[in-house]
Amino acid sequence: MKALKDKILTEGIVLSDHVLKVDSFLNHQIDPFLMMEIGKEFANRFKEAKVTKILTIESSGIAPAVMTALTLNVPVIFARKRKSLTLIDDLLTAPIYSFTKKETNEISVSNKFIEAGDQVLIIDDFLANGEAANGLVTIVKEANAHVAGIGIVIEKSFQNGGKKLRELGYRVESLAKIQTLANGKVNFANEEAPLK
Amino acid sequence: MKALKDKILTEGIVLSDHVLKVDSFLNHQIDPFLMMEIGKEFANRFKEAKVTKILTIESSGIAPAVMTALTLNVPVIFARKRKSLTLIDDLLTAPIYSFTKKETNEISVSNKFIEAGDQVLIIDDFLANGEAANGLVTIVKEANAHVAGIGIVIEKSFQNGGKKLRELGYRVESLAKIQTLANGKVNFANEEAPLK
Repeated sequence: MKALKDKILTEGIVLSDHVLKVDSFLNHQIDPFLMMEIGKEFANRFKEAKVTKILTIESSGIAPAVMTALTLNVPVIFARKRKSLTLIDDLLTAPIYSFTKKETNEISVSNKFIEAGDQVLIIDDFLANGEAANGLVTIVKEANAHVAGIGIVIEKSFQNGGKKLRELGYRVESLAKIQTLANGKVNFANEEAPLK
Repeated sequence: MKALKDKILTEGIVLSDHVLKVDSFLNHQIDPFLMMEIGKEFANRFKEAKVTKILTIESSGIAPAVMTALTLNVPVIFARKRKSLTLIDDLLTAPIYSFTKKETNEISVSNKFIEAGDQVLIIDDFLANGEAANGLVTIVKEANAHVAGIGIVIEKSFQNGGKKLRELGYRVESLAKIQTLANGKVNFANEEAPLK
């Protein structure tokens, strides 16, 4: 997705060989127009997938997920990293290990909002080792619902989360795939269509 | 705002005299069309306020804030409740006391994204005692920016956050003001225009 890649090239900050900071438009400050374009792009890529619900995880997944939901005309649910005091329903939960924080946290979704038969499109901002996406997949399965696909804004192709999810048979659509962050530079994966 | 009040009446769950659960459309599952309507309504109410940035707080403020930002054509920044590992900039911070959790947490915003001279519209999902809104006001002031106004989706008028903010001179626009939650029922404040 050209607009996204352009934004990454102009505003992304390479902090190390594996950390890209995009907090000027995605993770802290949010560019609402880019989010709308991202939502339209996900909606277009998954338009045949009969999506009934979108599932994301707080906080940076919410903006792209809501825009996708608006275009696909379905509700969006965000998994909580910390339990809400008013979330008294039965919960679908999954553990997520954070490689950066070196700790496991439980994410949770009320079982009211994902039901058997739902076709759930999972949306998240980043895909690296796949911990968050796998946790969301676990929650969809716990609900006896179906994973319609996984939409990722930025995939770090040099980590193995995307590879593992695709090997499991999930359709993973990433709007920007980063091959390397070596030498302080963003290099997109060759498999991506050329910038146009 | 009629669509919001209708949604509160049909889907809101009164958990106690002071707790209203709206997690089917705002706090956990999100109705993207209602969020868009809310965004347009805030944008309309603050259209003369020369807003340059929108500031909200993760997670439930993000969806209405992004939709408002889209309509007003400005970026949105969400304050973090927990520090990001890649958020290495100088931070604007404020303490927020949670009456429900009985603990104080520090919220933070990178000082890159709110600058002196900015006209900042603060958006949040709920206003009760005003702790979150006051924390966001503190952050705007730390940046030597100006509070253009405060937009709240649901104000609990029986708690004093809105009253205190208005007495301080801030323009607070709440799309639904709840007078009481007594006897398990939602009663909107009389000062609201009649449903039309």
